[in-house]
Amino acid sequence: MKFNIALLAGDGIGPEVINEAVKVSDAIAKKFNHEITWTPALTGACAIDAVGVPYPDETHDICMKADAVLFGAIGHPKYDNDPSAPVRPEQGLLLMRKKLGLFANVRPTFTFPSLIDNSPLKRERIEGTDLVFLRELTGGIYFGEKGRKDDGETAFDNCVYTRAEVQRLAKKGFELAMTRSKKLCCVDKANVLETSRLWRETVQAMEKDYPEVTVSYEFVDAVAMRLVQWPNSYDVLITENLFGDILTDEASVISGSMGLMPSASVGVHTSLYEPIHGSYPQATGLNIANPLATILSAAMMFEDAFGLKDEAEAIRAVVNKSLEQGIVTEDLATKGSKAYKTSEVGDWLVENL
Amino acid sequence: MKFNIALLAGDGIGPEVINEAVKVSDAIAKKFNHEITWTPALTGACAIDAVGVPYPDETHDICMKADAVLFGAIGHPKYDNDPSAPVRPEQGLLLMRKKLGLFANVRPTFTFPSLIDNSPLKRERIEGTDLVFLRELTGGIYFGEKGRKDDGETAFDNCVYTRAEVQRLAKKGFELAMTRSKKLCCVDKANVLETSRLWRETVQAMEKDYPEVTVSYEFVDAVAMRLVQWPNSYDVLITENLFGDILTDEASVISGSMGLMPSASVGVHTSLYEPIHGSYPQATGLNIANPLATILSAAMMFEDAFGLKDEAEAIRAVVNKSLEQGIVTEDLATKGSKAYKTSEVGDWLVENL
Ligand SMILES: CC(C)[C@H](C(=O)O)[C@@H](O)C(=O)O
Ligand SMILES: CC(C)[C@H](C(=O)O)[C@@H](O)C(=O)O
Repeated sequence: MKFNIALLAGDGIGPEVINEAVKVSDAIAKKFNHEITWTPALTGACAIDAVGVPYPDETHDICMKADAVLFGAIGHPKYDNDPSAPVRPEQGLLLMRKKLGLFANVRPTFTFPSLIDNSPLKRERIEGTDLVFLRELTGGIYFGEKGRKDDGETAFDNCVYTRAEVQRLAKKGFELAMTRSKKLCCVDKANVLETSRLWRETVQAMEKDYPEVTVSYEFVDAVAMRLVQWPNSYDVLITENLFGDILTDEASVISGSMGLMPSASVGVHTSLYEPIHGSYPQATGLNIANPLATILSAAMMFEDAFGLKDEAEAIRAVVNKSLEQGIVTEDLATKGSKAYKTSEVGDWLVENL
Repeated sequence: MKFNIALLAGDGIGPEVINEAVKVSDAIAKKFNHEITWTPALTGACAIDAVGVPYPDETHDICMKADAVLFGAIGHPKYDNDPSAPVRPEQGLLLMRKKLGLFANVRPTFTFPSLIDNSPLKRERIEGTDLVFLRELTGGIYFGEKGRKDDGETAFDNCVYTRAEVQRLAKKGFELAMTRSKKLCCVDKANVLETSRLWRETVQAMEKDYPEVTVSYEFVDAVAMRLVQWPNSYDVLITENLFGDILTDEASVISGSMGLMPSASVGVHTSLYEPIHGSYPQATGLNIANPLATILSAAMMFEDAFGLKDEAEAIRAVVNKSLEQGIVTEDLATKGSKAYKTSEVGDWLVENL
């Protein structure tokens, strides 16, 4: 098969981890007889520096024409202390999500047996954890009307959801649950918010179309607790944009391997695959960042965007092997053992594929 | 001294745990020569059953005239599966907060040395944790305009904050930080929300009035992570209503002793003290609920509402003693050891005061 992949490396360590994911993807393509064309494009702080906006039209065109987008990370410290600067890397992210129609952010959380003791949580609490959040990504308070009144003394952000927006996200949740343990948790704050009541009634009305799926409804505050108490009691969770932002980051701590967690954003147009970690500016150019989250995001891309399960499994298998053999960057290296460079990990994976 | 305390026992286990807190408070009053008048009043599901509303005017009058409010818990399963029922216990809670002007919810999280291994988090991650959230409690998306449009197909909730609302909460945060380690963290989502930008600029402008306090600004998703990674890196955290709802519940897991965590809500009129746990309907009437969170809330009341530090310390000391000696309810009883009844724990504390 032939694929055209848009390559949005972004800022900070983005280019370094993307580089390793490209190496591994190319090796997989060679092994399985596929042909990948990579089309690089600018996004984030580097795009602001180059052309003045964080998600240029040209980048959008490249993404729209691609079979998938592989994304690194964006953000630069020069924007960090001024969240009201007129142009910011995050705006590019939000615009990209909106224009590509990426309404569902898929965030799995699972444990790696060889790394389980890295978690701040006790082994017996997290063993067997294998959950997936579907976070709504193009609606809610992120995209509602916002502004100031009373000479700037009053600020407001409007949270808005339509039934159709809830339905399309929930549909993906039900479908995903059907391929897994058939358990779906709808996370909301229906005891306080009208948007949450719309979420809940919409999901309730869909239950009859998926009679095999057991649906639970839990308040976001209760989930924030149970997620660190008994993460392995969850399977598929669906939630709105802001709750999802908070809870998926909380969940990422469970595995103790945040530098390894992949994600996908899917929706109307081209799907996007990216590590959950940020641009880690302090490490830029040092060749020390962990490339595995990006490499595992590429595995998700092979499986979900291209339907190539064997290719995805091959990547995951070699990643597991590298972890077991301790071919890891400094974030995972145990005391006294060697820390490999970003590019060395990539090289090892390619050789061992 | 003489005190008049409004007693809002509420629903479920509320009356049982309140009962023990009254016993212990009376014993303390006797020991230190104070006189307490308790004035019971209805709230929650029991108020709906009795008079049709969850926070009757009469209850409000009693609270307004009291020196402090001691609150149990509210909620009943008959309202649980219908968050859009016309009258619900939670509405009473929100109305009470608004009418009493309880704009700051004070939620400490600390560890009990004798219970530290109950935590789902590893000992080395949580030892020394001693943080306090100040959650804004009468503004934000909880109280903004909410409703439906387009024949019910679109729902909205408006999040609104004024600079004055942020200032009065932040002022309490700075003042609290001054009595502790002089570290304040402002939790927001200023990279996305206009209300968060107002929060951040307001707090930034107040920094000069508290030159000794070191202020950090962190995004809510980052805090949701760090809270379970390195909780002991935090001291005082201030945040808006909804973020506070989620994060304080998440933080409550850290100590492994949720049944022991007290809280206070303070503001314009009478302050209120309550355990952070809910009404635990399944345990109603069984005399098994842990009364310590309510008893420690009474300790906060003695210290903060009445300025009686010795009385508060005496309560805390006897609670610690009971924990060390294993005089605990079933939620804390270790395998094979005796579980005491709710009232037995209260009796023991009174005897040992
Ligand atoms: C950078 C920020 C706007 C973004 C979000 O809040 O969605 C990030 O936290 C994420 O989760 O991808
Ligand atoms: C019951 C509910 C309305 C309430 C809230 O969200 O404030 C509760 O979760 C709390 O934190 O006191």
